[in-house]
Amino acid sequence: MHREQRQRTRELLKKQGIERALFAHPESVTWLTGFAPVSELQSPFQAGPHLVWYDGGSFTLITQDFQAPYAGDYAHEPDGGLILYEGYAVEHPIRSTADMAGQLAGLMRGSRGSGAVGVEIDSVSTRQFHALNLGLNMPEIKAIDHWLKPLRMIKTGEEIAKLRRAFELTDIAFDAARGMVKPGITEIEVWSAAHSAIQNTDGLRSPLGNDCVVSYREFNVGGLPAKNVLHEGDSIIIDLSARHQGYWSDGCRVFYANEPTSEQKERHHFVENALDYAISLIKPGAKAKDVDAAVRAFVERGGYPVYPHHTGHSLGTGMHEEPRIVPYNDMTIEAGMVILLEPATYVFGESACRIEDGLIVQADGVEILSYFPRRSF
Amino acid sequence: MHREQRQRTRELLKKQGIERALFAHPESVTWLTGFAPVSELQSPFQAGPHLVWYDGGSFTLITQDFQAPYAGDYAHEPDGGLILYEGYAVEHPIRSTADMAGQLAGLMRGSRGSGAVGVEIDSVSTRQFHALNLGLNMPEIKAIDHWLKPLRMIKTGEEIAKLRRAFELTDIAFDAARGMVKPGITEIEVWSAAHSAIQNTDGLRSPLGNDCVVSYREFNVGGLPAKNVLHEGDSIIIDLSARHQGYWSDGCRVFYANEPTSEQKERHHFVENALDYAISLIKPGAKAKDVDAAVRAFVERGGYPVYPHHTGHSLGTGMHEEPRIVPYNDMTIEAGMVILLEPATYVFGESACRIEDGLIVQADGVEILSYFPRRSF
Repeated sequence: MHREQRQRTRELLKKQGIERALFAHPESVTWLTGFAPVSELQSPFQAGPHLVWYDGGSFTLITQDFQAPYAGDYAHEPDGGLILYEGYAVEHPIRSTADMAGQLAGLMRGSRGSGAVGVEIDSVSTRQFHALNLGLNMPEIKAIDHWLKPLRMIKTGEEIAKLRRAFELTDIAFDAARGMVKPGITEIEVWSAAHSAIQNTDGLRSPLGNDCVVSYREFNVGGLPAKNVLHEGDSIIIDLSARHQGYWSDGCRVFYANEPTSEQKERHHFVENALDYAISLIKPGAKAKDVDAAVRAFVERGGYPVYPHHTGHSLGTGMHEEPRIVPYNDMTIEAGMVILLEPATYVFGESACRIEDGLIVQADGVEILSYFPRRSF
Repeated sequence: MHREQRQRTRELLKKQGIERALFAHPESVTWLTGFAPVSELQSPFQAGPHLVWYDGGSFTLITQDFQAPYAGDYAHEPDGGLILYEGYAVEHPIRSTADMAGQLAGLMRGSRGSGAVGVEIDSVSTRQFHALNLGLNMPEIKAIDHWLKPLRMIKTGEEIAKLRRAFELTDIAFDAARGMVKPGITEIEVWSAAHSAIQNTDGLRSPLGNDCVVSYREFNVGGLPAKNVLHEGDSIIIDLSARHQGYWSDGCRVFYANEPTSEQKERHHFVENALDYAISLIKPGAKAKDVDAAVRAFVERGGYPVYPHHTGHSLGTGMHEEPRIVPYNDMTIEAGMVILLEPATYVFGESACRIEDGLIVQADGVEILSYFPRRSF
């Protein structure tokens, strides 16, 4: 599982002269190992972020005993390994932090590597860092917080399979949400129906991200669902990220409480066209900032207010990954990337329309990942 | 908001000769400030845990701009303060970590305190710790990770009010769950209904903790809900923790797919009696380990297998707090504590019954926080 990811990482670290490294960002840990705890609720007995220790070419996952089921067969990967510390206990006080630190220092005392140690210092806890210093006797430290991000941009086949399922879950949620939207219903009721649909389909607790906001909100671009009621003629933006085996989807649809007005329909069609136009720009060699500028210009030419957010982004184990489709970004689109595009137009407090699809960039075109109809009228 | 908590903390730190301290555990941060972000989904642009910096008798909250709405009026508390760093931006690359570290170091450069600096090192990120070292020029550090826990044991009136609402939410969830339980329904469907009921009632996204497991599971003590189907004659354990303004509830009920058998009824009545017995033992001066031993002995005398977990615990901004009602714990019960009690009996793969109530310890008795009927047959 995720061997290609570890091979890319080994090559990078070798090139940079790093023989040992400690990864702690949840996105890095899942990307390196496939380990993806199901629930977003952290165990109260967890001793800091889950870790991956790289040494001698292998990547050892360090987590709480309680999380072992989510590590799958990672202990048996030829370049993997699994160390569990004790979380909950009845017989003695909780000692997860001491157990974690002791095992981590012990693991490091057995290290065969030398030279500076790479550490994701934005994420690793100070206790964990202290254990590293004890185990390795105060080594030279090199911050490697963003090193994996460029390696994560081109998705592997295994990742594409996980992403496909995550995008299917978004479609299932849109279907449930659409079924709820009518006058008298609240944002949170629409959200709960969408969330329940995903969880009931897959039979497990699952996080759900993003926005669910009625058009009459003063800030109607996004936000958490509340008790705002949909009235006849209101629309609602539903932007959802589901997660499957650690991989996120993303997508946005707009639904109307009963039949949209002709003005709403016109706006909706226009945003669909903007999305089609954006998709037509995605090909290997295109620059992120050029795509961003062209889509903004398209909306402006249409006479609609231009959206205040990004035109798009990528995703994976993170909800937002590079390349970001934003005004400053010089990065080039490449085959194997997954890109989200979300043109929109808003009049604060009045109207809002955003439609977002995901796609895989291919050498000679794109493959759309979002199947749910863009229009429900 | 939460001034009493800060006063207790000031007194403790003063007694220990600590003039400056950095808190980073989410439970500490909420307890000190009342700051309670609604969603459990961490923003992808967040730069490590939220922080509270204690200096000159004041407690400054440091968090991402996006989270400001959840900080309420904390900026205007006489001994409070709020520093926000930038999270999301379109015009330039995300620089939340650098902004957080710069602001933190700047805040510390203005420090008037002296002497060792207290730090929750299990929780603070290494980047944040590094900023502290830069800002204060490598001060002496004192680990203070568990210092607040004893101060958190006696709840304030403000906390009791939040806890009451959290327990009401659990009751609302039990009601929805009970309405779902019948042959053919899955664990996850029961869970989703319970979760939706809480969210739809309060009109906001809200985390939900704990267990939802059918009696025929091999490990039927607890676990995440799955697609296990309830058949005629099965029972289901539903153990729920809801969260209101940062404060957790906890409670457990057992429901039956149609009418329970006489054996199931007998077991259920017995566990109710065990819970009543446990409650009768809770009074100021009682020792946690004595309560634990007595309740285990009660179950054993009844001829039922004794549960493998704690007899109870406290809660607050953490789902599990001291005093734990466990075999080794010498702590004494005091008025003002909130105690959960959860006697149970299990035959793995066959039957399971656990009933859990929460209560406030008073000088002359207890006040029960859990109103949902213990029995639904």
